[in-house]
Amino acid sequence: MDFMLAFDGGGTNCRAALAGPDGTILGRATTGPANISTDPAGAAQNIVEAARGALADAGRADLRMENIPAFLGLAGANVSSHTEDLAAHLPFRQTRFSDDAVIALQGALGDADGVIAVLGTGSVYLGRNGDVFSRAGGWGFVVGDLGSGARLGRALLQDTLLAYDRIMPRSPLTRHVMSQFDDEPARLVAFAIDEKPVGFARFAPLVFEYAERGDMVGTALVRGAVAHVDAALAAVTWPGCETLCLLGGLAPLYAQRIDAQFRGILKTPRGDALSGAIELGLRVFSSSLKKE
Amino acid sequence: MDFMLAFDGGGTNCRAALAGPDGTILGRATTGPANISTDPAGAAQNIVEAARGALADAGRADLRMENIPAFLGLAGANVSSHTEDLAAHLPFRQTRFSDDAVIALQGALGDADGVIAVLGTGSVYLGRNGDVFSRAGGWGFVVGDLGSGARLGRALLQDTLLAYDRIMPRSPLTRHVMSQFDDEPARLVAFAIDEKPVGFARFAPLVFEYAERGDMVGTALVRGAVAHVDAALAAVTWPGCETLCLLGGLAPLYAQRIDAQFRGILKTPRGDALSGAIELGLRVFSSSLKKE
Repeated sequence: MDFMLAFDGGGTNCRAALAGPDGTILGRATTGPANISTDPAGAAQNIVEAARGALADAGRADLRMENIPAFLGLAGANVSSHTEDLAAHLPFRQTRFSDDAVIALQGALGDADGVIAVLGTGSVYLGRNGDVFSRAGGWGFVVGDLGSGARLGRALLQDTLLAYDRIMPRSPLTRHVMSQFDDEPARLVAFAIDEKPVGFARFAPLVFEYAERGDMVGTALVRGAVAHVDAALAAVTWPGCETLCLLGGLAPLYAQRIDAQFRGILKTPRGDALSGAIELGLRVFSSSLKKE
Repeated sequence: MDFMLAFDGGGTNCRAALAGPDGTILGRATTGPANISTDPAGAAQNIVEAARGALADAGRADLRMENIPAFLGLAGANVSSHTEDLAAHLPFRQTRFSDDAVIALQGALGDADGVIAVLGTGSVYLGRNGDVFSRAGGWGFVVGDLGSGARLGRALLQDTLLAYDRIMPRSPLTRHVMSQFDDEPARLVAFAIDEKPVGFARFAPLVFEYAERGDMVGTALVRGAVAHVDAALAAVTWPGCETLCLLGGLAPLYAQRIDAQFRGILKTPRGDALSGAIELGLRVFSSSLKKE
């Protein structure tokens, strides 16, 4: 056993790496979303496809997945009862799960203390202060993930309908969104009924873009989201906390807007979630990986 | 053709009536939800079952549905592209659709001017001032239906998780909800992922009940919902509007809390949505119904 596979699976895509026994990445691949709690079947498919891609990228398509242990950090693993089912459907020699926040923390901070906020399609907050972990969010799109791209997008579509109904003022942003649905509210609603979080999240950059230009609806949405992120950061930080890493696609947009106390401890992440999954996987599987 | 069938299908149940040519109800039945946009297959099944029940209740199980025209007021019909599909799968001689707000307005006001607000599992607002209809809401659970039972319930579950995460203060209400999920947030999340609007709406009475006792979270949720209902009513009423009927399961709870200007024009509805569906159906089918 000279290899391991590591995965970072979220609401937007699934990234896989084939690593050697010292953690060197030999091959990589990216496929579609792998959220185990909203779409376990799709997650399994994208995981296997990503594994196949990583082996091919490493020039080792000859390796059999049945011989390789896998460490998976998956969105939704913290709230899912499907992990055992999923493990049974995956072809790897051993399959260990963690959630995407844990691998992101490890990747960003290594073994140091600090806090991460993952602000992407979903949102989750995790801090480590010695042996004590503090956690908030990560509950998914329906009743959680405030501040995430998916929730910002959903809120924008809701405000667009409220504006259409003259319950809220219209703005250039709500007009722009309505025009994307041919000014037919029923089309917007039909889109929303069938859409997964990642589809809503595609609207999030637009919210920030219009807020930047002073759009009233965009500004109110961003203000509400930033207030939530500040409140969540307050819940997971501690007096004397010196390190905060913002991760995920919306990180640069939030970095300039969060409260000064948090901006003051912002650090660049040491590595990404996939590198965190490799680190954690090496610890778990080290006894069975041949060190060279 | 001496009979017609009328239906009032919403997120909670589907009510059917067999009516004679003068609108007299000969039999009634109630089955499960019939929301055409969130669950068209389930809607079709519950509609047919309700029809069968109404025929049996009238002691006319001998009648064949293929010989009876049907007028259906269905939640989601305003945003659905499934009405033609559904009509093709229903056994009635003729099938005409309206949405649930239109039949509710007809039932509550007859041909008079005024406004209705349906505040049940979903929410929708409809006004008629002469030939002019004003409409708001009714866009469904995901990006609409503010003030509805489903949205109140969803917001309660969200606040319960925020309180669990110490992002918001806990209250007797959030503790009560957590205890219903064995104090396991993952169970709450698993419930929310798979749940339909009606399941969320079951939590709504609890929100009002705790608000009544001064619970901080319940009070804030009710205040927000009432503010939305007031804003929606402002959008669909007009100067001099003299009639407002609140309908749906939450109507009595909102009636005492909406703004004084709206409380001042509250009237008791003349009839229910099902009677509205019969009235509208009689107009549509009158030429083919034998008057006695």
